[in-house]
Amino acid sequence: MQAYRALEATFARIGALEDASGILGWDAQTLMPDGAAEGRGDQIAVLRGLAHDLLVDPATADRLAGAEEAGGLDAWSQANLAEMRRAHTHAAAVPRDLVEANSRAVSRAEMTWREARRTADFALLRPDLAEVLRLQREIGRAKGEALGLSPYDALLDSYDPGLRQDAIDPLFSVLEAELPGLIAQAQARQEAAGPAPAAQGPFPVETQRQVGLALMRAAGFDFARGRLDVSLHPFCGGATDDVRITTRYDEQDFARALMGVLHETGHALYEQGRPAAWRRQPVGAARGMTLHESQSLTLEMQAGRSREFVAWLAPLVREAFGGTGPAWEADALYRTYTTVAPGFIRVDADECTYPAHILLRYRLERALIRGEMEIDDLPGAFDDGLRRLLGLTVPDDAHGCLQDIHWPGGAWGYFPTYTLGAMAAAQLFDAACRAEPDLRPGLARGDFAPLVGWLRANVHAKGSACGTREILEAATGRPLSADIFLGHLRRRYLEA
Amino acid sequence: MQAYRALEATFARIGALEDASGILGWDAQTLMPDGAAEGRGDQIAVLRGLAHDLLVDPATADRLAGAEEAGGLDAWSQANLAEMRRAHTHAAAVPRDLVEANSRAVSRAEMTWREARRTADFALLRPDLAEVLRLQREIGRAKGEALGLSPYDALLDSYDPGLRQDAIDPLFSVLEAELPGLIAQAQARQEAAGPAPAAQGPFPVETQRQVGLALMRAAGFDFARGRLDVSLHPFCGGATDDVRITTRYDEQDFARALMGVLHETGHALYEQGRPAAWRRQPVGAARGMTLHESQSLTLEMQAGRSREFVAWLAPLVREAFGGTGPAWEADALYRTYTTVAPGFIRVDADECTYPAHILLRYRLERALIRGEMEIDDLPGAFDDGLRRLLGLTVPDDAHGCLQDIHWPGGAWGYFPTYTLGAMAAAQLFDAACRAEPDLRPGLARGDFAPLVGWLRANVHAKGSACGTREILEAATGRPLSADIFLGHLRRRYLEA
Repeated sequence: MQAYRALEATFARIGALEDASGILGWDAQTLMPDGAAEGRGDQIAVLRGLAHDLLVDPATADRLAGAEEAGGLDAWSQANLAEMRRAHTHAAAVPRDLVEANSRAVSRAEMTWREARRTADFALLRPDLAEVLRLQREIGRAKGEALGLSPYDALLDSYDPGLRQDAIDPLFSVLEAELPGLIAQAQARQEAAGPAPAAQGPFPVETQRQVGLALMRAAGFDFARGRLDVSLHPFCGGATDDVRITTRYDEQDFARALMGVLHETGHALYEQGRPAAWRRQPVGAARGMTLHESQSLTLEMQAGRSREFVAWLAPLVREAFGGTGPAWEADALYRTYTTVAPGFIRVDADECTYPAHILLRYRLERALIRGEMEIDDLPGAFDDGLRRLLGLTVPDDAHGCLQDIHWPGGAWGYFPTYTLGAMAAAQLFDAACRAEPDLRPGLARGDFAPLVGWLRANVHAKGSACGTREILEAATGRPLSADIFLGHLRRRYLEA
Repeated sequence: MQAYRALEATFARIGALEDASGILGWDAQTLMPDGAAEGRGDQIAVLRGLAHDLLVDPATADRLAGAEEAGGLDAWSQANLAEMRRAHTHAAAVPRDLVEANSRAVSRAEMTWREARRTADFALLRPDLAEVLRLQREIGRAKGEALGLSPYDALLDSYDPGLRQDAIDPLFSVLEAELPGLIAQAQARQEAAGPAPAAQGPFPVETQRQVGLALMRAAGFDFARGRLDVSLHPFCGGATDDVRITTRYDEQDFARALMGVLHETGHALYEQGRPAAWRRQPVGAARGMTLHESQSLTLEMQAGRSREFVAWLAPLVREAFGGTGPAWEADALYRTYTTVAPGFIRVDADECTYPAHILLRYRLERALIRGEMEIDDLPGAFDDGLRRLLGLTVPDDAHGCLQDIHWPGGAWGYFPTYTLGAMAAAQLFDAACRAEPDLRPGLARGDFAPLVGWLRANVHAKGSACGTREILEAATGRPLSADIFLGHLRRRYLEA
């Protein structure tokens, strides 16, 4: 027990360092003056290095072995010890010089990427991206050896413990077979209906912010433990009991910022709902990126774009912006929020076309990690994929393989969790609706309590006490499947 | 050279941890939601603990000895090594359990203090404050032994390297002898002149902020490496190349926030002007609290409240707030900014009565550290002192010994630097005016460049390469004296 208690103290320190990095990272994206960027990079690198040192410290390894041998822990402590072991294995698998080389390569590639994307110049990014890939292959190999996994599975495991290609492939194959027809039908239906009347701006930023705050309140965001701010790229970050979400405002389009706020609120509710007694320990963390994305998409895509919720939202925004006419009716807003339109940019994609962007990236990054493809093949393969999957001809690499920060940023193995999260969201929302008859009527009154209460009990409060698969099966009664997601899309886009 | 290079790397890491704490501390005062307070306390405690560990690490001690023995360093590196030794000596002098006991006692006392001040209940704070005093005595003794100093001198040395009671006492005696008469004469003169016409609010906060930003720009604040925000207690904080000042706004009084902004801008210019090549090393730090306060008071008291500057400021604020009438003339604003009025509260005091508050605190805290007085004697002694020095009868302890956070906050030995800073400001401004004939005419045009350029060269760029005394003598041609400060007060308040 003594070894375990010492581990709890060590991991509380690691957690404090991660929380400190979380606030410093949030600040860098929201408020930090430009001239502070280099120093901030140093600060975060030092904090991460110290957390890594604590994790791989020989004393930590000894205590892990000691606590595992001693046994006698209650279920949560036992699960906590398993999460400590997991974190240690991942960290100890990668030699320190590889960690540092990767950190430097990623910093450089991210900087180059900003310029390369701006000028649509893949050649500019190519050497830095090749270096990041080389190091990601090494990291995948090193982690794979420690975990008994292939390199790409080992990278997947970093973002979503237990996630394997074997589980992804059949799900993505179903989507690949079903979605093109569904998209074509949805578009034909839209064209037949003609364009929805559009509200005319400008829509003052402060009004958008007030409506966003109202949505957060409706969803049960705890403002004593979080904030809403502005950043170029919206995100959910911050620290334990200090969950900070951001959005960006466009004076010509209020609809997007509002759904962005609901999306990030979904992430935030997961963070705020983690088990209180374990929030500063590994077992109290959110389970992984699939479930995290499922929470944002449950709020945004399942609840936020439902007919019920939009019927409550429309008069709220009409009054807030002082709008009049058919563009402010619930039907027009609903049609705006459910428009299907294949496009080049992932982050702008609707829920029907989004999976195509993910399928493409998943296959490309896996082939690159496996060595079945090299960096020079990437632009062509990306363009081919977008043509095949969405029928689009990429005009330049800024609209193609340069659009996302994930690859230069060293986040290989992350992309599939977006679409797995979308499927999980549909499945969780479906189960929640069956368990809570008042859920949909509640949304029509702007009341998220039945939905969020169910998510709290069935997802948030579980922390990392069991795996993604277990949480999902216990909550929904079945393993993750594409059926419920596809059924949701058919009902929303082809029926009704 | 190898040992010295290793030390530079260690101190860069320590600096990054201090900078990270600086941003986290700034955030706690400005934006942090209430529920995050406990976690934030943990984060900062962990960062400080890790910085302390790096500082007292045996490897650091070995390298210090090695680098000192090896020699062969250029002047700045040599000075840097001396500052490293200084930091190590201060840190290593205090056993870790004493550091932690003090940290805990201070956290507790600060919390109790908020309630005790609110309810004017000294008895409530008494036990916690007695514990802080006990630990400060121990820290003073421990540092004193390591530094060959008396305990109170050792505490002074923590805030202002090289500062000793022997240097303070004669300066403060002169002030004590001269100021009462000066204050009485200034008040008589004011009464004869009658009250200045007062501008009527409300003064919108956003307008006050815009004028504050204009003052910061005029003073040369670098917004690429800093920000202005709002907090309950104004301060200058943040990190290297990320200097963040705060103010608070009162819709009924614009004058105070503006001078507050100039005051903090003075601190900020010192931080932003530290020698670029050494900013992440100990020798690149600001020299100490006397010089730091001298910079804020040069901007606020010497330049900001000068007739020349107020003549430029008055039409600026009149136009910003759309004011009309005699209350908006430069003369009325100048009289507002130079009102002498003895009062209970230090932070509200004018520049003539401020030193009385400091004299009192200096003598009391020294007597307490020396053991010549005990906590139970504090309220009575405080009230006696305020009666004797300013002729005021303290109505309750919230207006007396409970008003400041310094003592419960463990900042013993800090108070005297406020008034030493005021004297240094007068002396520096006087020297700058003699060296830069365009300085006063510049202020009349809102141009701080001659003043700030001189301060950069003569104070900011020196970092900690030499002592406070050396910097002051090199800049002004003489040791710190009370004469120039008193001369400044006589000219401003008794003549003109």
